[in-house]
Amino acid sequence: MMIDRLFEAVIQKRNPSVLGLDTRLEYLPQELQSQFDAKAPFESAAELIRTFNYALIDATADIVPAVKLQSAYYEMYGPQGVQAFLDTARYAKQKGMLVMADCKRNDIGSTAQAYAMAYLSSTPFPDGIARSAFDMDFLTVSPYLGVDGVQPFVQACEQAGKGIFVLVKTSNPSSGQLQDIVAQGKTVYTHMAGLVAQWGQTQIGRYGYSSIGAVVGATYPAQGAELRAAFASVPFLVPGYGAQGGKSDDLALTFDERGLGAVVNASRSLMCAHQKSDAPYAQAAREEALRMRDDLLGALAKANRLSY
Amino acid sequence: MMIDRLFEAVIQKRNPSVLGLDTRLEYLPQELQSQFDAKAPFESAAELIRTFNYALIDATADIVPAVKLQSAYYEMYGPQGVQAFLDTARYAKQKGMLVMADCKRNDIGSTAQAYAMAYLSSTPFPDGIARSAFDMDFLTVSPYLGVDGVQPFVQACEQAGKGIFVLVKTSNPSSGQLQDIVAQGKTVYTHMAGLVAQWGQTQIGRYGYSSIGAVVGATYPAQGAELRAAFASVPFLVPGYGAQGGKSDDLALTFDERGLGAVVNASRSLMCAHQKSDAPYAQAAREEALRMRDDLLGALAKANRLSY
Repeated sequence: MMIDRLFEAVIQKRNPSVLGLDTRLEYLPQELQSQFDAKAPFESAAELIRTFNYALIDATADIVPAVKLQSAYYEMYGPQGVQAFLDTARYAKQKGMLVMADCKRNDIGSTAQAYAMAYLSSTPFPDGIARSAFDMDFLTVSPYLGVDGVQPFVQACEQAGKGIFVLVKTSNPSSGQLQDIVAQGKTVYTHMAGLVAQWGQTQIGRYGYSSIGAVVGATYPAQGAELRAAFASVPFLVPGYGAQGGKSDDLALTFDERGLGAVVNASRSLMCAHQKSDAPYAQAAREEALRMRDDLLGALAKANRLSY
Repeated sequence: MMIDRLFEAVIQKRNPSVLGLDTRLEYLPQELQSQFDAKAPFESAAELIRTFNYALIDATADIVPAVKLQSAYYEMYGPQGVQAFLDTARYAKQKGMLVMADCKRNDIGSTAQAYAMAYLSSTPFPDGIARSAFDMDFLTVSPYLGVDGVQPFVQACEQAGKGIFVLVKTSNPSSGQLQDIVAQGKTVYTHMAGLVAQWGQTQIGRYGYSSIGAVVGATYPAQGAELRAAFASVPFLVPGYGAQGGKSDDLALTFDERGLGAVVNASRSLMCAHQKSDAPYAQAAREEALRMRDDLLGALAKANRLSY
């Protein structure tokens, strides 16, 4: 069960955080940007992204359980960027990290199935052999289309032993426009969390959490705490720590009393740590990752929610 | 204004339909499938997809105004599949067709911007030159995250003269789970259509339609007619004709009295026409495209909604 592997890694590394690799060239240190080759721009961009990502993975693999790759920042460099996305995922796995693909994919029926095959299970070929295109451990999924937009992903998790995080309450300022609409006495995000809990019932692992989880933004800690209390089997991926403003003390209540049930992602604060440091960029990222870990563990201890 | 180019092409070719290229290897005729090379599976898949797509484009470019590429079916063949997606888009443009990327992308703030740069405008590089990664004419966008998940796409349309279609009422059986929730006396999909109309106010072209449009599934014709009547400036991309069960007579009311305001996509019925025909696959697709065109024009004429 993939969710067990995630919380095992959290316990083993004593760290409930995720390294977000939203790698755009502007974030790279000057020493890498200056190597850009305008004669082969997309290929060169992909190569620089690989160099940067691999260095950050090397610098954090012993202390951070998982990386999250934000697909948009790879797609903006075309098919070569998508190749760098795949290469980074493979590299992180080799180094013992779990890999989350933050793609927020969503579609219906056979098309949702195609996305699930692409990222979680495998694609059939004319020779009768199924091959994995991206083979990610976790994928984020957007639920606007309803259950038959999500069910194919849930099934792929079951078949391939993978996990998903469904958008429930996102970290952006206007997330309430749709997600906070109240119908039948409940907000849309609460309806959605209830569906996620239900979809995940058959994939609950040894920590009591399902491989079918929810994205709950760090910028809405009250809603995170409310959802944590109401849906004991749903693990949370919590983006928005650091640059977006999420604070560790607020986030403690999105964890259970063992310090499990949630992982917190930070991207810019780790990737761009070199901008505020004299250390080389990979070491700066490691130092910030350690600071973030200690910050989260400190907040969990203070809230009496830490058992590892 | 991209929406003007779309309706000009509809009028010029007398055809409000879109060729959906959801190209998976299972849909290819045996003569192509048998050329699959298991020694380089992803590269070979991409090559076969290009061959099939180019042949369908050659066979329909004079009669069909636009193609829609469903990204999932390319992503399932990895970065090589994504390359075939890009190559197909370029080929279709060369042949005078408009290209819609059906990616249903969605994210927040700078990440939504990255998707918008990837598909609609262009990506900045360290040498100060911005380059287009995919350069599509239209992109589909999923709105679960609220206005700051869509605004970056709207801005990119303005800057780059492109268009988007935002999911409003999708064609799948369970689309109502979220989209039909009633709040403040209106369904979520009606709220959403109102937002789309508002977002598109500054990009209205000469036919009275905005480059910011909506996806309205062919399988919900009553809702399509309701939305057409209520939101005069919002153009509709209507998937679900053919294999999914949408019928032309039902769809006529999603068009305005000139036969504009909507385009109807069909994928499987065109791509797989060879399975029900003795003609070569590309010719079978052309014949089905002509049948679909005549079916739609006939329904529009019957409903007194045809001016071209």
